[in-house]
Amino acid sequence: MILTVTLNTALDLTYHVPALRPHASHRVTDVRERPGGKGLNVARVLAALGHEVTVTGFAGGATGRRVRELLSGSAGVADALVPVAGSSRRTVAVVDVLTGDTTQLNEPGPVVAPAEWSAFQEAYEGLLAGADAVALCGSLPPGVPVGAYAALIRTARAAGVPVLLDTSGEPLRRGVAARPDVVKPNAGELAELTGSHEPLRATQDARRRGARSVVASLGAEGLVAATPEGRWRAIPPARVRGNPTGAGDSVCAGLLSGLVERLPWPDRLTRAAALSAATVPAPTAGEFDRTAYEELLPRITVTGEATAA
Amino acid sequence: MILTVTLNTALDLTYHVPALRPHASHRVTDVRERPGGKGLNVARVLAALGHEVTVTGFAGGATGRRVRELLSGSAGVADALVPVAGSSRRTVAVVDVLTGDTTQLNEPGPVVAPAEWSAFQEAYEGLLAGADAVALCGSLPPGVPVGAYAALIRTARAAGVPVLLDTSGEPLRRGVAARPDVVKPNAGELAELTGSHEPLRATQDARRRGARSVVASLGAEGLVAATPEGRWRAIPPARVRGNPTGAGDSVCAGLLSGLVERLPWPDRLTRAAALSAATVPAPTAGEFDRTAYEELLPRITVTGEATAA
Repeated sequence: MILTVTLNTALDLTYHVPALRPHASHRVTDVRERPGGKGLNVARVLAALGHEVTVTGFAGGATGRRVRELLSGSAGVADALVPVAGSSRRTVAVVDVLTGDTTQLNEPGPVVAPAEWSAFQEAYEGLLAGADAVALCGSLPPGVPVGAYAALIRTARAAGVPVLLDTSGEPLRRGVAARPDVVKPNAGELAELTGSHEPLRATQDARRRGARSVVASLGAEGLVAATPEGRWRAIPPARVRGNPTGAGDSVCAGLLSGLVERLPWPDRLTRAAALSAATVPAPTAGEFDRTAYEELLPRITVTGEATAA
Repeated sequence: MILTVTLNTALDLTYHVPALRPHASHRVTDVRERPGGKGLNVARVLAALGHEVTVTGFAGGATGRRVRELLSGSAGVADALVPVAGSSRRTVAVVDVLTGDTTQLNEPGPVVAPAEWSAFQEAYEGLLAGADAVALCGSLPPGVPVGAYAALIRTARAAGVPVLLDTSGEPLRRGVAARPDVVKPNAGELAELTGSHEPLRATQDARRRGARSVVASLGAEGLVAATPEGRWRAIPPARVRGNPTGAGDSVCAGLLSGLVERLPWPDRLTRAAALSAATVPAPTAGEFDRTAYEELLPRITVTGEATAA
């Protein structure tokens, strides 16, 4: 089983409007609802790849109840979310149907009490016992300590479970120092962590800060990876039109599935890059287009070299 | 008891952002949730004025469940909403905190099946037996016939219950022809109904089309009323800054409470105009500021004349 952690779960709403105009009134022509937060997106992609997945993190209030209701319809995803008294957040993606441009509105998460954070850590430790790998994904809701991911990484390492971290800012900085197996920053997160805007140099630098492997997702330019086994770059054939929301989560799913299947790094990166590119044309943010994925797989170019043994 | 009907109930969300920028990502700094749809707003104002109120209409899905949960916390408002298989809609008001300008996103309502519409009509007839007055408010969800309000007005008239109608477009046109006791269009709705942009002439014309009394709400310019007892204008002292959402619903509440208390028309209009103006500075759309209301009451100017007996 692969475990994914989403401390700041969300109900993701996608609204279609002809074009968003500030200070006007809009009739929404199409509404989609799905359980969101990066770890839930990663879990859905892993389940679609045939993996057994369990999701944990927090869910609360009417929004949390709706997230769990929708999750119960996601085949292959087991719900081990921990209740919280506050209400889980909504995110609203307003898509201009004429251009595909998206305006994002993100509610803040619920305030998590110290006792709730303790209850989560206990549940997490229990879930690790049955996990082949764990992904720690997304932002921290208010009340959760900024060193939360560092603590969860140490617990996973003590349990011998490989751990992937996908977050930003100070939680990423502290998490990297706790020596996760993989971190997956995007270009902005990597630059903020290392101070370097040069991805090859920055991925190396992030390794020196404690991450065993670093895979940076660079949007249409693909992936750059620095690992103990070597350095690679994986590039999709062409820019894909659509909504890039969730493309980074598909990268995490590709890397995790490759990790538990013990694929060589170039194959993991090929899968992750193809999944990521196949997420962009999917009609709903955070899902991937299986036909596009299968067409992209043989067309990903991986360059680089293994470290001399 | 006063009955209000909201066929297209909503969960109204108010989001505060520094300033809405199309195609950017926004962190929402403040989220407010309340049960919405015009009839629910009218009911809350009536309850705040000390009236016993029952709300009916449709509620369905997770959003409908949340609306009912929030309604159960509204003192003095009894919930007689009728279940529907589809999901009640959300509305999102995005307020730029720097300027107060508001961008509105309205989901479509659930599709109402013919059997659900029949079940509602039966419930409505039962509720009328205990009602001193009824308000029919807002848009029709998909599936409800365009002549719905006309049918509900005829049922109320047959039961001897005075009926106020507040809607727009074809449902208003058909409703007026069914001879409601009061219609409360805004300037745009009145012009669409009558073809005249001159409010005095248009209110007279709307009476000729079947409404016993017509009260047009003209925003900061107050109210214009044409009734069998005379014609009046009610004008607030000065333009009030804030969010005008719900000001029209407060007018309906003022008119209905005045009707069941058998106040003379000038007093009803004074109350309605003061409530409307006191809705604009309230922090949440659809509520009114009681202090502002009490300060405004003696400052409303009513001009006009009673019809010669």
